Amino acid sequence: MATYSIGVDLGGTNLRVAAVSEQGLILDKVCIPAVFKAGPERVVSDIVTIITTIRSRIGLSGLRGVGIGVPGFIDMNKGVVVGSANLPGFQGFPVRDAIQKILGTTIVLENDANAAALGEMWIGAGRDVKDLILITLGTGIGGGIVVGGRVLHGFLGMAGEIGHMTVYADGNPCGCGNCGCLEKHASATAIAAMGRMMHFGDDITAEGVYELASEGNERALLIFRSMGRALGVALANLINIFNFPLYLLTGGPLPAWDMFAPTMFEEVRTRSFTFTRNGTRIEKAVLGGDAGLYGAAYLPFQTISNREVAAAVL
Amino acid sequence: MATYSIGVDLGGTNLRVAAVSEQGLILDKVCIPAVFKAGPERVVSDIVTIITTIRSRIGLSGLRGVGIGVPGFIDMNKGVVVGSANLPGFQGFPVRDAIQKILGTTIVLENDANAAALGEMWIGAGRDVKDLILITLGTGIGGGIVVGGRVLHGFLGMAGEIGHMTVYADGNPCGCGNCGCLEKHASATAIAAMGRMMHFGDDITAEGVYELASEGNERALLIFRSMGRALGVALANLINIFNFPLYLLTGGPLPAWDMFAPTMFEEVRTRSFTFTRNGTRIEKAVLGGDAGLYGAAYLPFQTISNREVAAAVL
Repeated sequence: MATYSIGVDLGGTNLRVAAVSEQGLILDKVCIPAVFKAGPERVVSDIVTIITTIRSRIGLSGLRGVGIGVPGFIDMNKGVVVGSANLPGFQGFPVRDAIQKILGTTIVLENDANAAALGEMWIGAGRDVKDLILITLGTGIGGGIVVGGRVLHGFLGMAGEIGHMTVYADGNPCGCGNCGCLEKHASATAIAAMGRMMHFGDDITAEGVYELASEGNERALLIFRSMGRALGVALANLINIFNFPLYLLTGGPLPAWDMFAPTMFEEVRTRSFTFTRNGTRIEKAVLGGDAGLYGAAYLPFQTISNREVAAAVL
Repeated sequence: MATYSIGVDLGGTNLRVAAVSEQGLILDKVCIPAVFKAGPERVVSDIVTIITTIRSRIGLSGLRGVGIGVPGFIDMNKGVVVGSANLPGFQGFPVRDAIQKILGTTIVLENDANAAALGEMWIGAGRDVKDLILITLGTGIGGGIVVGGRVLHGFLGMAGEIGHMTVYADGNPCGCGNCGCLEKHASATAIAAMGRMMHFGDDITAEGVYELASEGNERALLIFRSMGRALGVALANLINIFNFPLYLLTGGPLPAWDMFAPTMFEEVRTRSFTFTRNGTRIEKAVLGGDAGLYGAAYLPFQTISNREVAAAVL
């Protein structure tokens, strides 16, 4: 029978689980509200229940494994969440082993932004490359770096903190201790903060600023031009450092592309001779909120393939 | 018999060639003035003559190949220099194939900063890691990025342009078209330029500024503190992006370490929570001007090992 894997997306407010074929087709999908407050045991129990249901519907024999995208830093060797602002109760909890023990299949944990980058490479905007960087614009700014088809983890799983790249050495202060972090100048939160600076009201949101800009409000458009410049500084740095063929943007502010992209490209062209010399692409990601789910599902296929290589070499 | 490889360093004013054992011991070494002005054919002929001499002294059978470090961008597939400010005549010249045809052994071309990073990993300050970034402080600032023991090339061999990372969005203008490039604030050239700003004379050099600082000249010390801050901004960015265990500095200004390192570390601590959370190291490289020569010699060992893996898998 055809093989498949199961991807789990633990991000945000929902727990989403999908069975995906080796060709990237969704065979089954379940979405329930995530009850993070009830603790990791409960979440693990929910995951196991859903996967068991899906397995009984699709079949046991074809399952290659389960990939789980988590909003936090992962110790890849131990399969443990070592840091997460969104999942405080998961700190140090052996997520991988707890699920593996019950299900008896390969379980791979991955940071959600990294999983999203993998997903875009597998069946999204990066299908034609093996090296790409995905930048996720949200409350903060996250990043996933894929080198030669594999996630760049760094020695403690903390690589890809693109949101905390300094774009303006004396820019807005950030909770991380730095000033001028990209996410303080280009995230949805930063857009809303600039909206308040522009006297759009204390409860203005990034969406609200976008609506005003869509109506031609010049001050709102200025905010997106400012956001684009900050993104351009960061992207030029990444292009000069990595010389990758593809950089993708995703997240809530993406519909404002036409508002922020002109200044973004202007900065990139000015600040990166690598960009102007070759065919580097900066594009919209295409999988949206499903990228992490697809990427999570891709993880078991990749891990098995690793083992096959190792077995062949040894 | 024991195997060895030959490293060639085409950088600067000299052409240096060394036979190196698999354990990293220099078995033979030749250094002659490089005659780049006479064109690539002449340089290739010099390289071939020296290698032939070395082979006749050490023995033909043990040679694994020749690695050549070149100050320019390399098309790794074609073995061609595609861009070099220092070797204008080499543009598009098939260096690899020209030498390979005569010597009949594996020839690997590599950018000199990348080769230096590999050398430090092989037998220098990075012997205990497989992921590191080397920053070379000179007339400009170059960089070599090693991921999993291999050089990060990017899709056109232009990765590692760390000298053109923006550290101050409105900083000093750079010939590349950008403002605030790291190398305009922290290279030997930048140190000399700041010396002129401090009225140390029109012909002040980086060494001259260093001597003044060594004598306690407060304005000269200020220059190194400024240089350290720029380096700190760049290093914090790299640490947030890569989460590598080791970042190395090398080049002429290294003796001024005690003058620039305090502000450098201060910036890194402020700007990178990744740095403060774990045991990331920023250290002096130890091989100095020989790093590129060792790294070039390491290339054939690495290439052969690649092929062995491929042969075993296929």
